[in-house]
Amino acid sequence: MWPSKVTICEVGLRDGLQNEKKILSVEEKLQLLDMAVDSGVRIIEIGSFVHPKAVPQMADTDQVVQKMQKVDGVEYRALVANLKGVERAHAAGLSKVKLTVSASEAHCINNFNKTPVEMIEGFASCMEFISKNNMEVSGAISTSFGCPFQGKVPVEQVENAVRGFLKLGITELSLSDTTGMANPRQVYELGSYMVKAFPQVQWVLHFHNTRDMALANIAAGIEAGVRTFDGAFAGLGGCPFAPGASGNVATEDVVHMLHEMGIDTGINLLKAMDTARMAAKLVGHEAASAVLKAGRCEDITKEKVQHQSNK
Amino acid sequence: MWPSKVTICEVGLRDGLQNEKKILSVEEKLQLLDMAVDSGVRIIEIGSFVHPKAVPQMADTDQVVQKMQKVDGVEYRALVANLKGVERAHAAGLSKVKLTVSASEAHCINNFNKTPVEMIEGFASCMEFISKNNMEVSGAISTSFGCPFQGKVPVEQVENAVRGFLKLGITELSLSDTTGMANPRQVYELGSYMVKAFPQVQWVLHFHNTRDMALANIAAGIEAGVRTFDGAFAGLGGCPFAPGASGNVATEDVVHMLHEMGIDTGINLLKAMDTARMAAKLVGHEAASAVLKAGRCEDITKEKVQHQSNK
Repeated sequence: MWPSKVTICEVGLRDGLQNEKKILSVEEKLQLLDMAVDSGVRIIEIGSFVHPKAVPQMADTDQVVQKMQKVDGVEYRALVANLKGVERAHAAGLSKVKLTVSASEAHCINNFNKTPVEMIEGFASCMEFISKNNMEVSGAISTSFGCPFQGKVPVEQVENAVRGFLKLGITELSLSDTTGMANPRQVYELGSYMVKAFPQVQWVLHFHNTRDMALANIAAGIEAGVRTFDGAFAGLGGCPFAPGASGNVATEDVVHMLHEMGIDTGINLLKAMDTARMAAKLVGHEAASAVLKAGRCEDITKEKVQHQSNK
Repeated sequence: MWPSKVTICEVGLRDGLQNEKKILSVEEKLQLLDMAVDSGVRIIEIGSFVHPKAVPQMADTDQVVQKMQKVDGVEYRALVANLKGVERAHAAGLSKVKLTVSASEAHCINNFNKTPVEMIEGFASCMEFISKNNMEVSGAISTSFGCPFQGKVPVEQVENAVRGFLKLGITELSLSDTTGMANPRQVYELGSYMVKAFPQVQWVLHFHNTRDMALANIAAGIEAGVRTFDGAFAGLGGCPFAPGASGNVATEDVVHMLHEMGIDTGINLLKAMDTARMAAKLVGHEAASAVLKAGRCEDITKEKVQHQSNK
């Protein structure tokens, strides 16, 4: 039932930082990038190429790409929403982008002033550019598990987005729980359905811990057959709709849980915890990370055994 | 796969308050008790009868029992560790007790200065008293998923405690993750094993959210066939081994997740959230409760829809 290996994509530099009040410098971002890669992360979302007025935290993603030290075997990608974004990514020297659309029509119109269908139609020009320039591409479907504007999101709406991406030739797809509304039963049911209906797709799940269900959702996603999950160092990100609530699920909490379950991630947990500590320091507030507060399961034992043996 | 109904036992008055620095008055405890019962809780642990020097927060459990307004259909119980505790519970007028032992020998010796076997042998006199006085009894096995002193706890040690309780005639048993070390794979595996090996037992699982895995563990416990789980309002409790870490899983987070999963609990979530707010106010610190910070999934939608319709 449980796999021996699960892959974590680090999205702290994008979905983590984009919702933080404090805007980090390029150098600070590069420091976190280097630490994450050094911890063993092999897929990392380094930022987004979207309108700098909409997301000022991501205005300098070009510079992050230009200055970063690429490590062999690591996939660096950025989120984009249109051709302009793809062109900027290419100009900066990045070879992989993630195109994003909302499953929910209300959310899509609110964020991009387009319906999901219009948005995916608009990706045709992106795909032309991507193909011509030998770039790689994946797709993300936000509000796949619930929408702050329309509430429940019917499976058909998620499936429409999946079919739209498949028509474009994109077969790596992420289902995102943008505002932390997913529950483990829903994740298991939607995940199982998608894995069976679209076996050609390399699925990724993206959870926020807004209502503390993210780790339960990841366990449910694994049971459904998904093997790749996003996480953000220190659980950065917050939620624009719920001030004070938790943000992205913390990479280090995911890694800790998976290792406790005997599932390898290729990530050194202690180094991931160092990255999270540094991220919390740089953004200037406490990490939303259980393992940073409580320590690993093995830490508590070690301390007590130490304490006992000193008696 | 998913049941239509799951039962939550409210343990905030005992395992929540016993680890809080601020000692509540009898009246404050009664206020929380009344609110919890009014929210729909039908099994509630109102305190413990243990040595007042060891746990000063529980010194007045006698008075709580004497002054509480019993509601028909609600099970009121207290935790006890020996005959003296059972006698005190009976003298106060309580008809149900929960006997507790550690699966881990190291933990049992540290807490009670007895091995698990010695401790369960000692329960024989408790059972005599319980039987003579027509009391009810359940058993709790702490450190079932990990021990701060010995680390991993082999299944055999948990099973020894189960068999010990069964020999005494106790068939309602709780497996407790005393210091938040359980992971969902372990819960599924140990839970499934126990449910199959001991079908005569009415199983309860008790989780702490120390490393953010409690909701994942509850989902895994349900999948394993368990239908009863402990929770504590506001996630009170902390962890003596991990200062600053989360305590018991918050009742309102459990209720929220289960309702989102289409599983009934018989508890009114908004009232459970009110109880949690009151508990946080009384102990004087913020609740470790995601749903209190973020609101229910449906709240975020309602607000946005409201906001949109006002545009």
